[in-house]
Amino acid sequence: MSVPFTLAVDAMGGDGAPEMVVAGLGIALERHPEARLLVFGDEARVGPLLRRHRRVAACCTLRHAPEVITGDLKPIPALRLRQASMRLAIDAVAEGEAEGVVSAGNTGALLAMAKIVIKMLPGIDRPAIAGIAPSAKGDVVLLDLGANITCDVRNLVEFAVMGEVFARAVLGLPAPSIGLLNVGSEEQKGDDRVRQAAEILKASPIGPQFKGFVEGHDIAAGTTDVVVTDGFTGNVALKTAEGALHLVGEMLHQVFTASLAARLGYLLAKSSLERLRERLDPRRYNGAVMVGLNGVVVKSHGGTDAKGFAHAMDVAMDMVVNRCNERIRAGLGGILFADAETAVEAAKKDPGEGHRLASTG
Amino acid sequence: MSVPFTLAVDAMGGDGAPEMVVAGLGIALERHPEARLLVFGDEARVGPLLRRHRRVAACCTLRHAPEVITGDLKPIPALRLRQASMRLAIDAVAEGEAEGVVSAGNTGALLAMAKIVIKMLPGIDRPAIAGIAPSAKGDVVLLDLGANITCDVRNLVEFAVMGEVFARAVLGLPAPSIGLLNVGSEEQKGDDRVRQAAEILKASPIGPQFKGFVEGHDIAAGTTDVVVTDGFTGNVALKTAEGALHLVGEMLHQVFTASLAARLGYLLAKSSLERLRERLDPRRYNGAVMVGLNGVVVKSHGGTDAKGFAHAMDVAMDMVVNRCNERIRAGLGGILFADAETAVEAAKKDPGEGHRLASTG
Repeated sequence: MSVPFTLAVDAMGGDGAPEMVVAGLGIALERHPEARLLVFGDEARVGPLLRRHRRVAACCTLRHAPEVITGDLKPIPALRLRQASMRLAIDAVAEGEAEGVVSAGNTGALLAMAKIVIKMLPGIDRPAIAGIAPSAKGDVVLLDLGANITCDVRNLVEFAVMGEVFARAVLGLPAPSIGLLNVGSEEQKGDDRVRQAAEILKASPIGPQFKGFVEGHDIAAGTTDVVVTDGFTGNVALKTAEGALHLVGEMLHQVFTASLAARLGYLLAKSSLERLRERLDPRRYNGAVMVGLNGVVVKSHGGTDAKGFAHAMDVAMDMVVNRCNERIRAGLGGILFADAETAVEAAKKDPGEGHRLASTG
Repeated sequence: MSVPFTLAVDAMGGDGAPEMVVAGLGIALERHPEARLLVFGDEARVGPLLRRHRRVAACCTLRHAPEVITGDLKPIPALRLRQASMRLAIDAVAEGEAEGVVSAGNTGALLAMAKIVIKMLPGIDRPAIAGIAPSAKGDVVLLDLGANITCDVRNLVEFAVMGEVFARAVLGLPAPSIGLLNVGSEEQKGDDRVRQAAEILKASPIGPQFKGFVEGHDIAAGTTDVVVTDGFTGNVALKTAEGALHLVGEMLHQVFTASLAARLGYLLAKSSLERLRERLDPRRYNGAVMVGLNGVVVKSHGGTDAKGFAHAMDVAMDMVVNRCNERIRAGLGGILFADAETAVEAAKKDPGEGHRLASTG
């Protein structure tokens, strides 16, 4: 499949921008030569880089953006910078010039702009940030990774629905299983919020795929294909796991440099160790998707390198090529449950019909 | 230092009880031969085990407990079982017969009983579960690990104070640094709850040790000695990290059995790899302490083995030998800030004097 498509790229976001971004585009375009790119950034800085990367330049249109959104800028002042590279890239999606946008810049600003400019899918209360993490049974979709610090019952239910569609489209699973993150797997565990969300999901159309509560260790175990939680917990859980893996990586480095015998041991096991390193390479999981929006919005880690940025580009390209947002839109229709508690009551009174996900799509 | 002390032990809690418990006591007593133990359990099952472990038997008094609290029993019905091994062990602490209690049984029941029977330290609103985790810079104290699913500003501030004293007493740090877990390190990040708690802590007597917000990856990085969060987030974060470490362990096993060369490599690096395995061994971190209670209460992981249970015993013994609870009591005095929001207002109006931790101790 090589249907051409266009992505907008914020060339100025991220610690190593714009050099890292342009180098990343070079890697990504090798895998997706059919992609057309609208690159937004400072012409004086990005122009010379593109002249050096001829192959990238051939797929790109560079548009000058006189302003840059720095990493520490809060969303409200960021929204005023209408000539910033990030903003112009988002505008391109809103105006239909591009099908998606990739940025390694300020997450808060990107999310706020995307919500206001690109807007939400019909019926969605709030978008979530979804990411992919490694597990013993393959990749796992985790959301929300921090778009929403506080979430109510409705948000959690919506995240589950969006995560399910995301896992079908991006991981290619026919009927992904879903777990709701909690402090225990028993029904009485957790607060009212997660218990109510579980009741609604059980009675919903995706009820058969809903496996109830999962715990922190179930993420890496791959107990379910999708793990749903609020943005505070999801953000902390993901970063805690990343930190633990980084620590082990450092320790393994020490192990294999501790003695001559250990160095030799490393050489002997090198090919399998390299495969392990590749499998857990954070760059392989770079590219969090803001789901629930009316366009593909991918956030790359700000501290990543060209390889990591290329992976975020891959995610955006996969989303577009697999028509993921259309599938999300179709899967969601328009969720119109007015009040989660009412829905719980309805589910209790009428367990046969259960909770209604009134689809208007 | 070999001042004799007495600990109460619930012999019937945990997946491998009572065999696992008695074997664990054998290991723990080698390190603390001065300990006296009151062991509560089914005489018909524990008696024969003690007769086989003569050295353990010599330090133990076995008291028959006709009832057992199972793992799935909810706290309220558990509280009715007044002849359960867990309950009788807790009663021994409340009655001054033992200075602490160790159980690998039902966490919810243990916490509920401890709160009601042993009671809270003066001025403390709620106890927290504190644990120790490995980091790049040594061990880190993490709390709350799940005693409180929802926490308010006051709880978070109290956890910080308790965690600080715990780190001083158990890790032996003169002035442990403290971080409040959040989704970013910038001041504007997170919800009102964490922002208010941070303001109170900044203006509090432990203000100089308070380093502000930390993120998930800061736990394994050892950015601060103490990491404070609510019980939902703390529980998920700890289990997520454990899951990630377990996954890497499994993958390393695969790496070193993948080929003959890799097997040989393992043998060459074996001694350093074994040190790494020992350093990250979950059993080494077994034994979560319920801090804020009027006695030492240690919860062992239910699925642990004798070595892990022995470590939980060590933690309890260290708490008692280091007079940890007296130090917590002295450090806390009686926190009497009536209303966290009022305290924040006071801190804003009078930044010089700031928030009062009115000590009555």
